[in-house]
Amino acid sequence: MKLSLNGTLLEPEAARIAPGDRGFTLGDGLFETLRVREGAIRRLNAHLARLARGAEVIGLPLPPLDLAAALEEVRAANALSDAVLRLTLTRGEGPRGVLPPAAPHPTLLITAAPMAPTAPPARLIITTRTRRNERSPLAGVKSLNYLDNILARQEAAAAGADDAVLLNTRDRVAETSIANLFAVIDGRLLTPPLADGALPGVMRAAVLALEGAEQSLSVDDLDRAGEMFLSSSLGLRPVATLAGRPLASVATARRLTAALGEA
Amino acid sequence: MKLSLNGTLLEPEAARIAPGDRGFTLGDGLFETLRVREGAIRRLNAHLARLARGAEVIGLPLPPLDLAAALEEVRAANALSDAVLRLTLTRGEGPRGVLPPAAPHPTLLITAAPMAPTAPPARLIITTRTRRNERSPLAGVKSLNYLDNILARQEAAAAGADDAVLLNTRDRVAETSIANLFAVIDGRLLTPPLADGALPGVMRAAVLALEGAEQSLSVDDLDRAGEMFLSSSLGLRPVATLAGRPLASVATARRLTAALGEA
Repeated sequence: MKLSLNGTLLEPEAARIAPGDRGFTLGDGLFETLRVREGAIRRLNAHLARLARGAEVIGLPLPPLDLAAALEEVRAANALSDAVLRLTLTRGEGPRGVLPPAAPHPTLLITAAPMAPTAPPARLIITTRTRRNERSPLAGVKSLNYLDNILARQEAAAAGADDAVLLNTRDRVAETSIANLFAVIDGRLLTPPLADGALPGVMRAAVLALEGAEQSLSVDDLDRAGEMFLSSSLGLRPVATLAGRPLASVATARRLTAALGEA
Repeated sequence: MKLSLNGTLLEPEAARIAPGDRGFTLGDGLFETLRVREGAIRRLNAHLARLARGAEVIGLPLPPLDLAAALEEVRAANALSDAVLRLTLTRGEGPRGVLPPAAPHPTLLITAAPMAPTAPPARLIITTRTRRNERSPLAGVKSLNYLDNILARQEAAAAGADDAVLLNTRDRVAETSIANLFAVIDGRLLTPPLADGALPGVMRAAVLALEGAEQSLSVDDLDRAGEMFLSSSLGLRPVATLAGRPLASVATARRLTAALGEA
């Protein structure tokens, strides 16, 4: 599928990332994953607002391009109806060293992928390999630094599970390797607060605008949950098992999926 | 300067990183920085051993290439006598998603840069923006996830300093954004243990083989230090000031620089 690199539509084979791009050498960049449904990019403004907040945290100027138009251009060029777009923004090329150049030339890449078939309810483990660092401002930024998430996801796969819950450094639940986590506990819909290291997910905010509340959660709390679901820009996904314990209910996830227009 | 991409020598302009390379999209990779001195790559085996350990942590197969030969090829192609090589190893291209492909095709990039002139003693601050996550196995891996270090380095630059000390989530000293940290306290040469989030630096190990000991250090401990120095593969660099407090002595750094053959 065609992609967009710095505002130019290209076939993937024609797109070149420079070996000195700081996105490649230092993970110095951000990304957004956006759902296309019925030919429209969902929650576009919320994604662009989060990207702008992340860029402010890491001191990265946004490129002088109309990001919404560039996203739509990739969608239209591939005639996408139901798909996933990914926007990657890096600090671009720089000389050796950690300090960013004073006047960076950011790299903007937009790629498209088909939407995978709806996945069955997720089997979750709680990762023992790593922790989310809620003491870093990057916990609230969708950055290119995904290796902790990759470690957790590998552990899940090795255990025959679909995803892994990350705890923070104070033993609180943060999220999973690719999604925010919601749990129905004593009849209340709860999700970890951002201060516990949850990414400010666009879908998470959409859910919270309808119902539910932020509350710090321990593993013991999750063990009492009657229902859990994952929330990401691709949709809500019920949780089938947590560390092998079945969660029977999918009612809240089903109801909210409809209410959010994600059915 | 010529670089090597997957074993092929190229001019930088001819080298293409694919937009789907997981090093670029997810920071899914490792690197090593190696010093060339008098035409020889310093501590080559130690660097390759650390790379192999990091690859094991993140489950990345090493490419079927002679890494030492590839490094020497780049050195020789550029007729480098005093310089810096960087080896970057990523998981290569993959489809959308966090889980690595079962059979990755790693990307191996080796670049060269001139050695910068000897820097004056460093002015350090202690970063308030972020923390080293000693609870992650990545704290011991030289991975591409450098954004926390970039945040710390930006804070140092904004304060008119050269580098920033990172504390871990339990208020212990870990290292700086680009170097291990040694301090002479009550006449003893000390450096934080790996468990506190220090990277297992090649030069750090070389220093410890000569003298000094690992010990957890607090900011209060650093405030009592009579001398401090930074340790990286490029050499030892005395510390001039910590949060504005002058450190008069550079004697230990000078003596060890000579003893290590880094003068």
